[in-house]
Amino acid sequence: MLDFWFEFASTYSYVAAMRIERECARAGVDVRWRPFLLGPLFAEQLGLHDSPFNANPLRGRYMWRDLERLCEKHGLDWRKPSVFPRHSVLAARVACALSGKERGPDAVREIFRANFALDEDISDPRVLAAALRRAGVEPGPVLERAVSPEVKQQLRAYTDEARALGIFGAPNFVVRGDLFFGQDRLADAIESATLRD
Amino acid sequence: MLDFWFEFASTYSYVAAMRIERECARAGVDVRWRPFLLGPLFAEQLGLHDSPFNANPLRGRYMWRDLERLCEKHGLDWRKPSVFPRHSVLAARVACALSGKERGPDAVREIFRANFALDEDISDPRVLAAALRRAGVEPGPVLERAVSPEVKQQLRAYTDEARALGIFGAPNFVVRGDLFFGQDRLADAIESATLRD
Repeated sequence: MLDFWFEFASTYSYVAAMRIERECARAGVDVRWRPFLLGPLFAEQLGLHDSPFNANPLRGRYMWRDLERLCEKHGLDWRKPSVFPRHSVLAARVACALSGKERGPDAVREIFRANFALDEDISDPRVLAAALRRAGVEPGPVLERAVSPEVKQQLRAYTDEARALGIFGAPNFVVRGDLFFGQDRLADAIESATLRD
Repeated sequence: MLDFWFEFASTYSYVAAMRIERECARAGVDVRWRPFLLGPLFAEQLGLHDSPFNANPLRGRYMWRDLERLCEKHGLDWRKPSVFPRHSVLAARVACALSGKERGPDAVREIFRANFALDEDISDPRVLAAALRRAGVEPGPVLERAVSPEVKQQLRAYTDEARALGIFGAPNFVVRGDLFFGQDRLADAIESATLRD
């Protein structure tokens, strides 16, 4: 069992989201998808109300180059988003509303694709509806549930859990409380999950 | 050809330094060892006069746990240094003084081991002398050359080159100007060097 902690605004979370299901399935490791919001954590931990990649342009420049390279390596569509980071609260609530649903991972991937392959505004419910449809999910009921008090509370609970795990960025893979930060640590996390499961 | 940019105070540089020669040799990729100082870059880029791992305790906590895990994975000795980060100017000058020498990489590894496996103060010339001896290098002439104007200038030139490459952390692997940041990107860098060499 491996928990995948992702943030829809995060470029490296996109790469991880597109890779994780196949690579975990190959190793026989179950994945739990855990959306959370990085914004509140950055604000608390760094006093930052923007992406660290914007706050530090050098890291930003490297990240954009790296993403291009990683997407090529993993065969992923990539278009540098015209707005970064995008507001991801509604998208994260949609992921919560889909939790446990069969097409949940498909829908999560389509939302990531909207942001990073199609350069669409994932805070727009119409963009999210189109992404859900591409994943074979009827958008109406999901979008409605996404703004229910229960789902809002679920996302807050996930973000609280991320904080308690010591999370300070995205994506993360967690195996029995042990944190692996960064999409490039997926193989290590899978190995750890395989050893201990 | 791959340039390995390392900083003796950097924990992840230790892991990279211990891995790089074997993994590059296996792929038939030549390595150029490039010591530089992160301190001036952190000061310029972040206004920071400490390690970012100290400035952000959460990242620090993760890093120490991660290092333990990485050293176990790669079969490396590890003792959490009682002082972090250690002053690395003299050690970096020693690496410059060894540049091109046959036992240079051995000596670099022994200096890293002094810091991260033996918990020794690598700003102390006696510690550096012992590390050089363990690498089969006569310390006297090297330590003398390390404080010559030529070697001091060489280290400044490397740090300038690191800045010009857009380096903002350590370790880095550079393949024809393309930067790979972090020890976990060694395989990607080697693959890139193999493809283009």
